[in-house]
Order: sequence, then structure tokens, then C-alpha cells
Amino acid sequence: MRRNVRPLACGLIPLLMTVAGGMNAAAASDKAASMLGFSDQAATAQRALEQRFDAELKADDQREWMRQMSSQPNHVGSPHDKANAEFMLAKFKEWGWDARIETFDVLYPTPKSHTLELVEPTRFTAALKEPPIDGDSTSSNTADALPPYNVYGADGDVTAELVYVNYGMPDDYKELARQGVEVKGKIVITRYGHGWRGLKPKLAFEHGAVGCLIYSDPQGDGYFAGDVYPKGGYRPADGVQRGSVLDMILYPGDPLTPGVGATAKAKRLALTDAVTILKIPVMPISYADAQPLLAALDGQVVPRDWRGALPLTYHIGPGPAKVHLKIESEWTRKPVYDVIAMMRGATTPDQWIVRGNHHDGWVFGAWDPLAGNVAMLAEAKAIGALVKQGWKPARSLVYASWDGEEPGLLGSTEWVEAHADELKRKAVLYVNSDTNSRGFLGVEGSHSWQRMINQVAADVRDPQTGVSVDQRLRAALQVDAFENPSPESQRVARLAANGSDLPIGGMGSGSDYSAFLQHVGIASLNIGYGGEDEQGGVYHSVYDSFDHYERFGDPGFAYGVALAQTGGRIMLRVANADVLPLRFGDFAETVAGYADEVHKLADAARERSDVLVQLIDSGAFKLATDPAKPLLPPAREDNVPYIDFAPLDNALVRLARSAKAYDGALAEIQTAGMNLSARQRADLNALLQGMEQALLDAKGLPGRPWFQHFIYAPGMTTGYGVKTLPSVRESIEDRNWDLASQGVIRTAGVLDAYSLRVERATLALNLK
Amino acid sequence: MRRNVRPLACGLIPLLMTVAGGMNAAAASDKAASMLGFSDQAATAQRALEQRFDAELKADDQREWMRQMSSQPNHVGSPHDKANAEFMLAKFKEWGWDARIETFDVLYPTPKSHTLELVEPTRFTAALKEPPIDGDSTSSNTADALPPYNVYGADGDVTAELVYVNYGMPDDYKELARQGVEVKGKIVITRYGHGWRGLKPKLAFEHGAVGCLIYSDPQGDGYFAGDVYPKGGYRPADGVQRGSVLDMILYPGDPLTPGVGATAKAKRLALTDAVTILKIPVMPISYADAQPLLAALDGQVVPRDWRGALPLTYHIGPGPAKVHLKIESEWTRKPVYDVIAMMRGATTPDQWIVRGNHHDGWVFGAWDPLAGNVAMLAEAKAIGALVKQGWKPARSLVYASWDGEEPGLLGSTEWVEAHADELKRKAVLYVNSDTNSRGFLGVEGSHSWQRMINQVAADVRDPQTGVSVDQRLRAALQVDAFENPSPESQRVARLAANGSDLPIGGMGSGSDYSAFLQHVGIASLNIGYGGEDEQGGVYHSVYDSFDHYERFGDPGFAYGVALAQTGGRIMLRVANADVLPLRFGDFAETVAGYADEVHKLADAARERSDVLVQLIDSGAFKLATDPAKPLLPPAREDNVPYIDFAPLDNALVRLARSAKAYDGALAEIQTAGMNLSARQRADLNALLQGMEQALLDAKGLPGRPWFQHFIYAPGMTTGYGVKTLPSVRESIEDRNWDLASQGVIRTAGVLDAYSLRVERATLALNLK
Repeated sequence: MRRNVRPLACGLIPLLMTVAGGMNAAAASDKAASMLGFSDQAATAQRALEQRFDAELKADDQREWMRQMSSQPNHVGSPHDKANAEFMLAKFKEWGWDARIETFDVLYPTPKSHTLELVEPTRFTAALKEPPIDGDSTSSNTADALPPYNVYGADGDVTAELVYVNYGMPDDYKELARQGVEVKGKIVITRYGHGWRGLKPKLAFEHGAVGCLIYSDPQGDGYFAGDVYPKGGYRPADGVQRGSVLDMILYPGDPLTPGVGATAKAKRLALTDAVTILKIPVMPISYADAQPLLAALDGQVVPRDWRGALPLTYHIGPGPAKVHLKIESEWTRKPVYDVIAMMRGATTPDQWIVRGNHHDGWVFGAWDPLAGNVAMLAEAKAIGALVKQGWKPARSLVYASWDGEEPGLLGSTEWVEAHADELKRKAVLYVNSDTNSRGFLGVEGSHSWQRMINQVAADVRDPQTGVSVDQRLRAALQVDAFENPSPESQRVARLAANGSDLPIGGMGSGSDYSAFLQHVGIASLNIGYGGEDEQGGVYHSVYDSFDHYERFGDPGFAYGVALAQTGGRIMLRVANADVLPLRFGDFAETVAGYADEVHKLADAARERSDVLVQLIDSGAFKLATDPAKPLLPPAREDNVPYIDFAPLDNALVRLARSAKAYDGALAEIQTAGMNLSARQRADLNALLQGMEQALLDAKGLPGRPWFQHFIYAPGMTTGYGVKTLPSVRESIEDRNWDLASQGVIRTAGVLDAYSLRVERATLALNLK
Repeated sequence: MRRNVRPLACGLIPLLMTVAGGMNAAAASDKAASMLGFSDQAATAQRALEQRFDAELKADDQREWMRQMSSQPNHVGSPHDKANAEFMLAKFKEWGWDARIETFDVLYPTPKSHTLELVEPTRFTAALKEPPIDGDSTSSNTADALPPYNVYGADGDVTAELVYVNYGMPDDYKELARQGVEVKGKIVITRYGHGWRGLKPKLAFEHGAVGCLIYSDPQGDGYFAGDVYPKGGYRPADGVQRGSVLDMILYPGDPLTPGVGATAKAKRLALTDAVTILKIPVMPISYADAQPLLAALDGQVVPRDWRGALPLTYHIGPGPAKVHLKIESEWTRKPVYDVIAMMRGATTPDQWIVRGNHHDGWVFGAWDPLAGNVAMLAEAKAIGALVKQGWKPARSLVYASWDGEEPGLLGSTEWVEAHADELKRKAVLYVNSDTNSRGFLGVEGSHSWQRMINQVAADVRDPQTGVSVDQRLRAALQVDAFENPSPESQRVARLAANGSDLPIGGMGSGSDYSAFLQHVGIASLNIGYGGEDEQGGVYHSVYDSFDHYERFGDPGFAYGVALAQTGGRIMLRVANADVLPLRFGDFAETVAGYADEVHKLADAARERSDVLVQLIDSGAFKLATDPAKPLLPPAREDNVPYIDFAPLDNALVRLARSAKAYDGALAEIQTAGMNLSARQRADLNALLQGMEQALLDAKGLPGRPWFQHFIYAPGMTTGYGVKTLPSVRESIEDRNWDLASQGVIRTAGVLDAYSLRVERATLALNLK
């Protein structure tokens, strides 16, 4: 569902590094010799196992599975969606897995009729259709497909003046206020990008708009970005980005069953009580349909960074363009089919490592999600083969292919809610993937697993260059820092150059890890390759097809194999490790960085407000503006008080100390051959299994109790993008100083609970 | 000719200023009470004179003069160009000035025939025409107009594959090398912007291209920038930017008479020896003509920041587009008519204050140059009226309306070359203007005059807000720093907030001050209002008309009056000052800032080269690039040695000390009532008159002896944009370390000569 996994290091980086290049000798030898959580002897055996695992991976398998699964529309409720679940069920069974389909019953509205017309000052009726394209064999096979739509928007029939609101994000409404433009009673047209699509109609509604159009400007993923399909991979004029507008930052999953599995007998909310369903109609459109609407707008010319790549002068409106928007949907429940397969652990069956990828697409879904799904299937097939050869994982492996991810993480969320207690007791780690393509490894997730994923990346070979995917990424990060210098890119380039572990990104939302990580506190990782592809152009459109993927995604499926090697290594290492491979120093250091950011955020807000008030009071805004195109002064801001960050700072000191003690003790024991008694090992692993749950606060984040993780959350005003230390950061951003102070205390609380658990693990480790 | 004068502060500025707003009390009272170079009593009289001067300024005069002068095409050689000179001659005489026309005889090629065709893979013939536009009355009056062309390009008839080279600047050719694309034997197409137009064909030739097209991408000044003419003021699809491509960074003026006035009897170079004439044909085209050519290109998609606003995917080529370009010109000499008017000084007639603006345009030239020219005429009329009332300037005033600025600063350069000795002996200051429109005061020039111009700006009222133009600019600088924070914008905002003088920009080239400042060392200022207009769209096109200017330039000519008030105050104050109003601390501080920049430039080059070599040697570029769209590594760079900056640093210490002593002594004497003996005053003013000439080195800058000023020069790779401390800065940029070291010594030499002269002035001031 989400467009891109970030590269392993959360951004790319630049110039003027002073550190010598190449991995330093100490780090390199450390890397070669050790495997976190394993004795040297066990590591050698593990690497041999991974070689056998790799030998079972066939690119052709992935190609054929993708061809088959993407041959028909496979959205929720489609015949082929069910067929795909049954196809995978049969495969898992054939490969020796204990597999079943779990079905949930979810609200899933589908379009009955759609209209969009310009009615003034001229008339134009939007096509709202994606025609077949030569050379794209499935694009004419759309009898079972749904038309382009935004699921979970409201039904409605509205006619109103149009206003262009850029990306429709909070800053855009601040700019509109300075321009003296209101959207109350209007229909807004917003372009895709710079924030999750669901926020666009939500914010429009909150500002009084009665309807919302979201279009794909060619600047984002059309001809401005590159040659359009079929010459290149980018969005053709009629391509539409479908997508969910469910208010997932309140809670994802079935809107009618928050917090519980949407089983047949679950208690359901009335439709009118489902707060995650939007209140105004919203429709996604192509740039061919958007152009006449935008051309009909007048009023002030938009600010420079609001302009797209259509050949016209962008105006804000309102009007004279007036549009008629009508949407009618069928508000019925549909089944979602999660395919769940288990391989029971030989020694610790009640510790689970869970791997997942969704299988539902918006139409054919070759890129999203099947590219990731077929790599995951390849892992399952190879593991099945190892088991048939007599190997067994020490812990249990669970592979899941989720349904209903696109409309709102439905399949994964309902499954997690239905199995929450068991998962809290048993799940060690959830490993997610989604789309996948040619390029660089991207990872985001729980930072206590950063060391492990760095070690895995050093052992996977990049198909195009022959070096490890770790080494290739380090090269790219250093080159990027050279070409695009910034403090952050240079910081990461220094890590890349000196052989330190590369940082992983924090998790927001937009794929199936949300319920695992943020609702029940299962440590999670999201992995995928990308960055050298042209997915953008067909994202969530009918052209996200097998033909497109083979040309522009991963020709030869070499990165499909790399993803399976990466995911498989994670699963096998975590399954077999003597001690679960966590390192807490990475987490402590990362959270300290987040704390530094929120300190600076408060300071910057204070300085900004002081200057703003001074400039308003001195009349500077009035003197500076062009009287022919006047901008009103920004809204006045109250003074920003100093916030007591001491509880957070103290908790971080304790966390750093606890983490250092544990990591040091584990390193010592590992070097000495990992001689732990069975009891000691069991106690230790039991403590480690649920470690991440210490970071939950059961009352949840302010205003959205479903989200309980106090370190990582999707942003209230970003949607997919992560907000770290969310109870503090978002309160500062909202200028709610009391809530920020409470957030400091609650965040310190979860960190102290985490430190306590780390300290107990250190005690378990040090028992003689 | 040049598009914009910069705002008084050389950039606009931003956020998080910690200094309290408003002018501090000390600075404010200082500002009100004193006038640099005047006793308090004389200052009071001077302000009264300025009030009388203002009373003579009529906006309607300017409107009528512009209407008359822009009624017909007025380029060099046109009947109306001569008629305008005669019109002004008559006016000056009517106003009581001693006026004459000085004629020079310059090489000025004009087009005989022009062809541009796409011949492969499809055919298209470029229109190369600017059709009439409804509501623009002169756009159909083009019988006497020249077609769009770039004067001083070569004749030629070439057919070759096309390559898109972005802005055609040095970095663009580095990018092409990384893409593996050569332009040898090709025709390049480049867009206007990011560097002076004349560099584009010059660099193309140096890289082996056989022809050059320059087009106006709508991103720069077409529909992307705003509504196009006639709805708004921006460039319509058929609008073309004409312009000179004379290699003015070698020397401006007549190509056949470098260094001497192009009088009838001057010795002339053979055409083939005129190095400032380009070697390949070059043609400016509209975006309507460019679009089919760009659409026919294939090959690699261009980097993101190479993309414009046309609705197509920009490709580099080469080919398959192939174009035929043919240009034939008439290579004859034409007359240029400089109108020169003098008002003899009553007490010191041999000290001249020179004021100039050109009168030739590309077609009708309402914006460029007539908006500035009519404001200058208004000053002359008002001064004439004061003289008729019995007033006389102490020093002589010279007003000049130059011809032939557009093709290459011809009229001003030839006049300066013809009168070089006299100017060096007599000229105190040259005050230039060019275009003018609604908005903010922009000033660039010699920094020893920064205090004077700041005092003038505080005394001119902004027509739209009623505050002084200084106060309005301070507000804008603070707001800009708030909205677009950067270290530089915040630095200037602090100055704006605390009442310090606002910095002026250094002078590059692109208007008639070049010969004054950079060839003979006459201190210069360039002034103009702007920033709230829509000139860009008609710059150098047939649509630069009276109708356009009245709608989008300066409706009501209120800023024409403001410019006359500004220019007039400068002229009157410098003419009447007891002591010429220079302050050397501003110059010393500014040059110290430039020196700091060149230090950092060398350090950054050193660090960059070290990292680059390391990344090349480690193979990082090869690993990082996308094998499907490979980028070659950048060219290897030699190590950067440490440069001995000590001579420069020592010279700056002396300069700062000398400046402080002089400024302090003058302030003391001024406070005490400016009691200087007549002899002392005469000696002092004689020293100050030629002060700027100390900054010349008679051998000139490396490779371009005509340019002798060692502090300010137009950049070899920027054209119009200034390079300060050019002999040092450009040598570092060229990685010529020996030349950089020599530049340090030569620059220190001129600064020492300047300091010596300042020290002599201090002695003269302190004589009891």
C-alpha cells in the first residue's frame, strides 16, 4: 500500500566527509566473525543453512506466481482475491506447512455510481476511466475491476465552487488564510503527495469543504518524472491513483470493530458511529480529468511551490470553476481471506517469528503487493524444502499473506486483534514486506533489531554489482552525501564510511506492521528493495501490471530473490539464535536522538513565535506585502513556555546505562562461546520476547487509544510518516503545552519500564 | 539590459532573529540629524533644496515621455532611435542644460535571413515571429523592427543532431560528461536563465558544438511564473527574448575598438580579430518554437533540476531530433547617439557627478530602458527648474542618455574610452539606472558610498505605504528572513531590525556602469525599484511596450517619481557636500567578508577534492549508480594546496585601521560644524575624487586586461553576476593555484594603495 520502503538509512546523504572511506579493520573483522545471538560455532552452522536456503530460491517461481496472481483483478471481494488465497493455501500445504485461511467479515463500500462534471464557466465531464494500453495485456481485462475510487469516503451529491489547495496539508491551509481564501462550502481539488491521501479530505472537511478531489499532477509521477507508460514507466494522462481514505491514524482495520477481530459474531458499531469513515465525498482523478478543472480556476496565482507540471498557470480560485461531484456506494460487508501458515519450532514452539505481506491489490497489483508477496512465498517454499531435508527451526515460524491491506490494513489488523493475547505471549518479531523492486535495501523498524538487520545485509549479495547489499548501500550513501550535502546526509555517510551499522528508519504506518507494533507491541521490521524503478507512475492504477513490473520493476526477478534471501535470513536467524539477537544500545542512542529533536522543536517554536509577534506588532508584514496581491499576516501565536524535559532526560540516562550493561554482558558471553544453562537461556529469551511491549502505554496516545506505542506512531498530520516520541512531539506541534508535559512523563514511564526489563535481562545473563 | 537590480540588501532574508525589532534610538537620532559630508546647517539647507526638487517632479511627464519614446522600434540604427536622441537633446536644452549628441560608429550586425527547421525524425519549421496581441497597441507596429535575434553571434548554415544542455553553464557540461554525452558537432538547445545568455553559445562552442539555440522555458517567465500576456504580464508562447551574445567578459563596447572610443577616425580591428564576436550561430526562440524540438529528443531523461514546465518528458538526446539552423547577417557599422548634458558647478566645476541611463531598446523598450530613462529625464528637468530659480550645484552635473547599451554597452563604453583621462581626473561618482518598476529599492555599487545611499533611502517616501523606502525594505527583509531562513537572510534581517545600514550588492555587469567602474575606476552606483512587477515575461521582446508597462510595471508612474527622487538626491548631495560623502569602514568590512569567502572557498575545494578522490578510488560511484542509467564518476581532481593568504589578510588589517581613523576623524569634524579651510577642503576632496582608482591594477585581470578593478568584476562564468576579489576567487574556481597566489598579492597591492590614499585623506582632514 505504501509507496516506498525507505532505504536502510532513513534518508540518503552528502559532501565533505572527513572520515576515511572503507570499513575499518576492527568493524570488518567483527562483522565477519560474529552473528548476534549465536556462538561462533552456531553462526558457522547457521551460515551453511542459509546457503542451502538460498539454493532453493528460483526467480522463475516468483515470476510464475506473480503472473498467475496478477492475471485478474484481485481487490477485496473479487473472485480472484479468493482464488489467490486458495492458490497460496495449496502451495503452503504442498511445501509442508500447517496452513489455513482465516476469514474476517469487514465493512467494504464499493462504488455504485460516480459523476464529476465542470458546470461553470464551461462544461466538461470527467472520463474517470483508465483505457487499455498497447503492450499491457491485462489493461483490457477489467470486467471484474472496480472503477477508480477512494474507499471509505462518504456518499454525496454536491455542486460548489472549486478551490485549489495544493497538497491539502495543514501548512497549505495556513497559506490560504494568508491569501484570504476560505474553503467553507467549496469543493477542494488537491494533488497527491506530501502527506497521506486520507488526510486531504479529512482536513478539507475540518475546514468546511463539502467535497474533495485528489489528482495525480504530472510533476509527481507523470511526464515530468519520466517517460509515461508504455514508453516508460510513469503515469499516463488517464492513470488514476486509487486508495483508502479511512482515518487510520485513529485506528486501522474494519471501521465497525475497533480493537476486536471482525469475526462473524463480533459486536459491531453502527455505521454512523464509525469515526474512521470520512464525512464528505472524495474522488481520485487523472491529470487528464484535472486539467480542464484547474484551467477553469481564477483568482490569485498560487505560490511557487504549489505549482505542478500541467501547461497552465495554477490559480487558487474560488471559482469561477464550479463542479458537480456525485458518489453513491454500496455499503456492505465483504470477506477478507488471510492465509496463515505455521512451521512449528522444535525446541521453543511457543516463540513465534511472524512474516507477512498482503495479497490484495487495487486492480492487478503486480508491484503492490505481489512483488513482495511472491518473494515471501519463495521463502516459505525454501524453508519447506529445508524441513523436508530434515531441518527444523528452533522457534516457530508463521507466514501470513494478508487480505484487505489496501482499504485499511484490514486482514492484518483483524488477525492481530483476534489473536492479541497469544501474540503478546508468543510473538518475538514481525517481519513485513509490501512492494519490491530493483535497487537498494530499505529497512525501518524497531531499533533494538538494527544490529541484526545490518548483519543480514552484509551477507546478502546485490544482484547487479556482486557486492553485498550493505556495501552497495554504503557506497550510495557516501555518493549521495557528496552530491547533496546536508548535516543528516553527512552524518549517515560518516557511518557508512567508517563501517558503523547503518541506521534504520522509525515506523509510521501504511503497511501491515501497524497492528503488530503499535497496537500490541510486537517488535517489527519492514523490508524491501527499491529506488531504481519507475513504480510511481502506476501506483494503485490499472497499469500496475505484470507487463509493467517485468519491464520497469525487477526484470528477471533478481531483487525478488534478494528480498527472499533477506527475509529468509532474518526468519532463520531469529528462529535459531541461542539468545534473541537484540542490541539495546542502538535503541537507546536512537531515542536519545529523538529526544534531542523534541528539545530543539520546542526551542525553535519559542524563537519563532517571539519573532512572529514582533513582526506583527511592528507592522512589518503589512509593509512587506505587495498591495496588488496582499498577503495577510500569519496568525498570532502565544508565547511558548519552557517544558520540563527532565523526566525524559533522566529516563534516557538510565536507558543508556542499562543498554550498555546488557550489550556488554552479551558480547562477553558470546565471545566466550555462549555457554548459558538451558534455564538461563529460557528465562533470558522469555524476557526478550516481549521486550517491545514495555514501550506501550495501555491508555494509548492522546485522542487515539488504539495506538499504544510511545516511541513510534504514524503522524496525525502525516498519515504514513512516522512521528517519534509522538505524545511529546505532536503536542508541541499542536502547541498543547500541558499535553506535551504529560507526554514527557508518560514517555519517561515506558522507557523506565523498558530499562527495568533490560536490567532484568542483564541479571539473567549474568547469573553464574 | 540587465533584468533586475538587486534589492538594496543583496538578497532577501529570514527566521529566528533574536535582535529586537525597530531602529534603536541612537541610530535613529543619528540618521535624522546628520548627513554625511555636510554640516548640520548645510544639511538643513540641502533637505530644503530636495523638497523644492521633489516639487518639480510630475508623474505625467514620465508617462508622456515614455509614450513618445516607445511609440516606434528604437534599436540601434532605427530611425526612432535617432529621433529619441534628438527629442532628448531638445528637452535638455529647453531645461537649461549645455547638451550635445556624441556619435560613435560601431560594428552592429543585423539579420538578413534566419531559418530554423527540425528535419528529423519529423519536420517542423520554426515561426521565429512574435504576432500582434490584442490590447497591446504597438505589437502590430513592427515595420521597423528587427526579427528576434542574438546580436554578435556568427553567421552559419549548419545541420546537426540536437542536444539539450539545460542552462548551458559549466556544471551542466560536467553533468553531460557523467551521462556520457558529448556535444561535439551537435547543435545545443539551452534555456534562458542561471547565467548570462552570452556564455551559453560561448561554452557550447568551447565544447565543440556547431550551433546554439536559446529558448525561454515557461518555467522561467511563461505560464509557470504567472498568467501570460495579455491576461497577465508573463511571456506568451510566441514571445522571444532577444539579446546580445557579445563576449563582454573580455571587453564590452564596439568589438572593433577595444580600449579606445569608436570615433570616425579610430583605428579598427579586422572583423576576424574581434575576439568578442562568437564563433558559432546562435538563435533565441520562443517556447512555442522550442516545444516540437524538445519533444523530438530521446536518450536519457534529464536530471530533475534540468526539467522545465513544458508538458513533455525532457530528454538529453543527442537526436534523433536533427535541426537545420541558418543565419545570415549584414556586418556593417551603425551610428550610436549618446546624449550628453552638463550643468556646470559653481564652485568646483572640475568635479563631475555623472548620471546615466540608456535609451535604446530591443524593440519598443518601455520597461528596458525607458522606465529608467524617463525618471532620469525628470531629474534633469527638475534640476533645470532649480537652476532657473537661481540655484547652482557646487560641483558639475553630467546627465547622459546612452545609445547601444543592449548590443554591448556600446554608447557608454565608447564614451568612457574616448574621455578616459578627463573622467579619471574629474568624475567623482557615476550613478546608473536601467529599468524601473513597482516595489523595493535595489542598489549595488562601490561600498564606500553605502552610508550615503542609506541616508538617501531614509529620506524617500515609498508611494504605496507612505513610510520611507528604507523602512519598507527593512520590513521586507525581516519578513523574508522569517519565511525563508538562511544564515545570510538572518544576518541582513538583524541589520534591518537594529537600524544598521543595509548592505548594497557588489557590481557585476549588464548595464552602463561597467566602463566607469571596471575600466577607469570611477566609483559607481546602480539604482532601481522593482520586485512587485511582471517584467520577466516581456523582457527583450516586442511586448515590452507602453501598454504592458502601464498595466504591470508602474501604474501611475509613482515609482518613476520615487526613482527620480532617489537619483536626484544622490546627485544633489554629492554635488553640494562640503566633503564628498564617503565612509571607508563599510568598504573595509565588506572586503573583509569577501576575503573570508575566498578562504572558505579554498578550504571547501580542498575537502571536496579529498572526498571525491576517495570515493572514486573506493569504487563508490560505480556501486552507487543505477546500471540501467549509468552515471560515470566525476572527473578526478588534484589535491588542493594551501594558499598563502597572508598578504591579503595583512592588507585588510591596514585597510580596517585606515578606514576607522578616517571615518572617526570626519565624524568628529562634522559634529563640530565641518570647519575646514578652503585649501584643506580642496585637498581632501581632490584625494577623495579619484579614490576608487586605487583599486585598479593597470595590467587588468588575468586574461582580460580591459577589466582593471580588483574588487568587483563580472564573472567569467556568470557574465552579469559579480565575482568579488575576482583575481583570487576565479583562480580558485579554475583550480589555478599559482594564479590564485598571484591574485592574492595583486589584490593586496591595490588595497594597500587604497589604504595609503585613505591615510593621506585622514592627514588632510586632521591638518590644523
